[in-house]
Amino acid sequence: MAVAIYPGSFDPVTSGHMDIIERASSLFDLVVVAVAPNPLKQPLFTVEERVEMLKVVCAPLQGVEVDSFEGLLVEFCRRKGATVILKGLRAVSDFEFELQMAQMNRRLAPEIHTLFLMTTTEQSYLSSSIVKEIARLGGSIEGLVPPPVEGYLRARLAECGR
Amino acid sequence: MAVAIYPGSFDPVTSGHMDIIERASSLFDLVVVAVAPNPLKQPLFTVEERVEMLKVVCAPLQGVEVDSFEGLLVEFCRRKGATVILKGLRAVSDFEFELQMAQMNRRLAPEIHTLFLMTTTEQSYLSSSIVKEIARLGGSIEGLVPPPVEGYLRARLAECGR
Amino acid sequence: MAVAIYPGSFDPVTSGHMDIIERASSLFDLVVVAVAPNPLKQPLFTVEERVEMLKVVCAPLQGVEVDSFEGLLVEFCRRKGATVILKGLRAVSDFEFELQMAQMNRRLAPEIHTLFLMTTTEQSYLSSSIVKEIARLGGSIEGLVPPPVEGYLRARLAECGR
Amino acid sequence: MAVAIYPGSFDPVTSGHMDIIERASSLFDLVVVAVAPNPLKQPLFTVEERVEMLKVVCAPLQGVEVDSFEGLLVEFCRRKGATVILKGLRAVSDFEFELQMAQMNRRLAPEIHTLFLMTTTEQSYLSSSIVKEIARLGGSIEGLVPPPVEGYLRARLAECGR
Amino acid sequence: MAVAIYPGSFDPVTSGHMDIIERASSLFDLVVVAVAPNPLKQPLFTVEERVEMLKVVCAPLQGVEVDSFEGLLVEFCRRKGATVILKGLRAVSDFEFELQMAQMNRRLAPEIHTLFLMTTTEQSYLSSSIVKEIARLGGSIEGLVPPPVEGYLRARLAECGR
Amino acid sequence: MAVAIYPGSFDPVTSGHMDIIERASSLFDLVVVAVAPNPLKQPLFTVEERVEMLKVVCAPLQGVEVDSFEGLLVEFCRRKGATVILKGLRAVSDFEFELQMAQMNRRLAPEIHTLFLMTTTEQSYLSSSIVKEIARLGGSIEGLVPPPVEGYLRARLAECGR
Repeated sequence: MAVAIYPGSFDPVTSGHMDIIERASSLFDLVVVAVAPNPLKQPLFTVEERVEMLKVVCAPLQGVEVDSFEGLLVEFCRRKGATVILKGLRAVSDFEFELQMAQMNRRLAPEIHTLFLMTTTEQSYLSSSIVKEIARLGGSIEGLVPPPVEGYLRARLAECGR
Repeated sequence: MAVAIYPGSFDPVTSGHMDIIERASSLFDLVVVAVAPNPLKQPLFTVEERVEMLKVVCAPLQGVEVDSFEGLLVEFCRRKGATVILKGLRAVSDFEFELQMAQMNRRLAPEIHTLFLMTTTEQSYLSSSIVKEIARLGGSIEGLVPPPVEGYLRARLAECGR
Repeated sequence: MAVAIYPGSFDPVTSGHMDIIERASSLFDLVVVAVAPNPLKQPLFTVEERVEMLKVVCAPLQGVEVDSFEGLLVEFCRRKGATVILKGLRAVSDFEFELQMAQMNRRLAPEIHTLFLMTTTEQSYLSSSIVKEIARLGGSIEGLVPPPVEGYLRARLAECGR
Repeated sequence: MAVAIYPGSFDPVTSGHMDIIERASSLFDLVVVAVAPNPLKQPLFTVEERVEMLKVVCAPLQGVEVDSFEGLLVEFCRRKGATVILKGLRAVSDFEFELQMAQMNRRLAPEIHTLFLMTTTEQSYLSSSIVKEIARLGGSIEGLVPPPVEGYLRARLAECGR
Repeated sequence: MAVAIYPGSFDPVTSGHMDIIERASSLFDLVVVAVAPNPLKQPLFTVEERVEMLKVVCAPLQGVEVDSFEGLLVEFCRRKGATVILKGLRAVSDFEFELQMAQMNRRLAPEIHTLFLMTTTEQSYLSSSIVKEIARLGGSIEGLVPPPVEGYLRARLAECGR
Repeated sequence: MAVAIYPGSFDPVTSGHMDIIERASSLFDLVVVAVAPNPLKQPLFTVEERVEMLKVVCAPLQGVEVDSFEGLLVEFCRRKGATVILKGLRAVSDFEFELQMAQMNRRLAPEIHTLFLMTTTEQSYLSSSIVKEIARLGGSIEGLVPPPVEGYLRARLAECGR
């Protein structure tokens, strides 16, 4: 059974992420959407909240599982029996960083392969950061995130006093 | 059954292409290596010769088929029952062109997905053009192409009088 | 009166070009769409045919004129009384070439300014070359070029025996 | 009347910014130089100080106004009656980020167009950050910022104890 | 005597840095590896520790000196009698930043030239940051840093409680 | 004695090339400017003419020799006793191609090192192609090429009937 891991911060999940998850679910037997903690950036949502949101929006999809991990991504792949790491590519700057990570991961685990899917043009300008910035400034985020995520985002920003 | 098409000019196949083919054969049930005619460039080998060389070097691999096509790549995918187009990425300039092709192919055939594999760092400087240039200038191409291809290349360049 | 020149090969005009022309016509008093001969590439349509197609598709737009030129672009700008050269940007590779041209043109004519508009994401994969390639291979180009251009393109490719 | 907004941090304004402002003032009826707060970066000057410096150095220019804004840039454009957002481009990395912002702003306000001007080659290596770094390390910043800004920068760095 | 400065953070020195140092030592009479403090980033090792590690790993090399500096790099070059600044290039994003620095340094000191060496393909994915990240997550860093550095890194991460 | 080869087409030599040659001559004992035939492009000047022009413009420089070569560049370096290949970098697209060539040359001759110098910002938009294009269209090339080259270029274009 072909298992693919789709790792990311998902702080929060956007419509661009959903496009990748939907297409991946048609290509692999199991896609594990894996929330990674990012110790350097201050997240808006906890790992638990991000997993919860992903579970809500991925519920209608077949063969998609949501999880989180700590430690090396390749170790998580091995525990899950995955031979594929899936990444979305939007732009050249993504490309270079992801190339470095893919080479490093190949060195650490030659049996695991990183595959890249291009983000659709309609969503190539989307990122979790830009979505949070627009929401924070009071702009409409309709269509930029799955509908249930809009509510979580509004609630969190209200709590933070903006 | 998951079928992936790996299209290219393969004029001739290099060690970089072989790395992609080998890794792809471990990920998909069937990988079809598909020689595309390129009406704009003057090739060194005919489509038939390129198919022949690929058949020789792919013979030891399980689940790899060699073919050629004319017309639209997405039509060839449909005839083969493939839902995946595989491409290797070496550099930023590749990336932009391939992104354009992937977007166009998605528009023409939304059910077919383009997946990218990074070329290994050891082969990131390899291309069919650079291999032909070195062979033409009398340099060693050992390790840059599969061993049987070295012979074909030397023979062809001798015929061309260099 | 602010006059802007939008130069290009337009072999043929695409929906991406039309998006730039329409937006430019709302920003400047007069937009001159200027067909440039390209001595290096073998065009599919003559300069006259390209001008004719542009005239047909730009007819409904206010403040848009179609013309062609030979010689230096900055000399053509001066003859037209234009202080702006407009260019569309799709990708990083465009960007570098256009930056070189913009710097050179600024050196030749410091009073003329090159302004860049981003192509919409929906059309970022569009180019005259890719449209011709798809048409030549028998794919649908609906939506990729303005409707009247589809006919010209089919007719020309039929004449060429494809 | 064609109104263009030129947004930025201007912490502080550099000679590269001044080149863009001067050229823009010859192309539009009114150019509004708009200081944006950047909640993520720790600025060296307050928004009020940045506005004050810009007012000093833009005083000799016709049709240039200095202002600041909070909230979405496109909302500020609407309040000012502007249909153009102006941005300077120096390098490929600028280009990608600005492309994302331009696409997002077009989505939020289709009637507002982002136009890009290339920075002159002489100033392509200039940024507010690099100017502050050189001043902090005791290097000469003559010519890198408008003369009045040199004084502000020296005074602020002296206050900070460097 | 041709003296070259190889500046960097070296937090810690990697196998990629060592490749540059070794090749540089065969090209110049004296190579000064110069540790720069980086006031913006929180380093893992102090400047003194980084100098100490570099001294250990550079001890076998002829014509290599290790030092540190504060203030402008070009002033340090002048104090050392160096006319060359050496930098390693891995990727496009490096390239743009380094181009800006090289242009600025040429403006500050026209008699000093920045020369770039490409990192070997085997090490193109290496950086001090990625090495620290892998070590922190418990992965093997064998071969990524010179052997003595492995010990320093393990010890420091143990002190930090990871 | 440190010998560096500066290879190129030089069809014809530009002011950007001269900047590299002058700076290189201050860094190495001997700089060999080496004209390479380019079998793919149709040159405007023969190899002999390009060598002749370079000899004229390099005559005032100490430690600069002009030559031409056929075959592999690394073989030419070995015949000349050179351990350095010098290349100028202008833009990201240059960078990627040159990185590939540098890696391939390192594989063919590990004892030879490719060093890169950045082109000055004032000349970053210069290339032999753009100079020829401007001259062909009747624009001024003063300052873009060394003065003696202007005459050669005008004479050749007059012969070609433009």
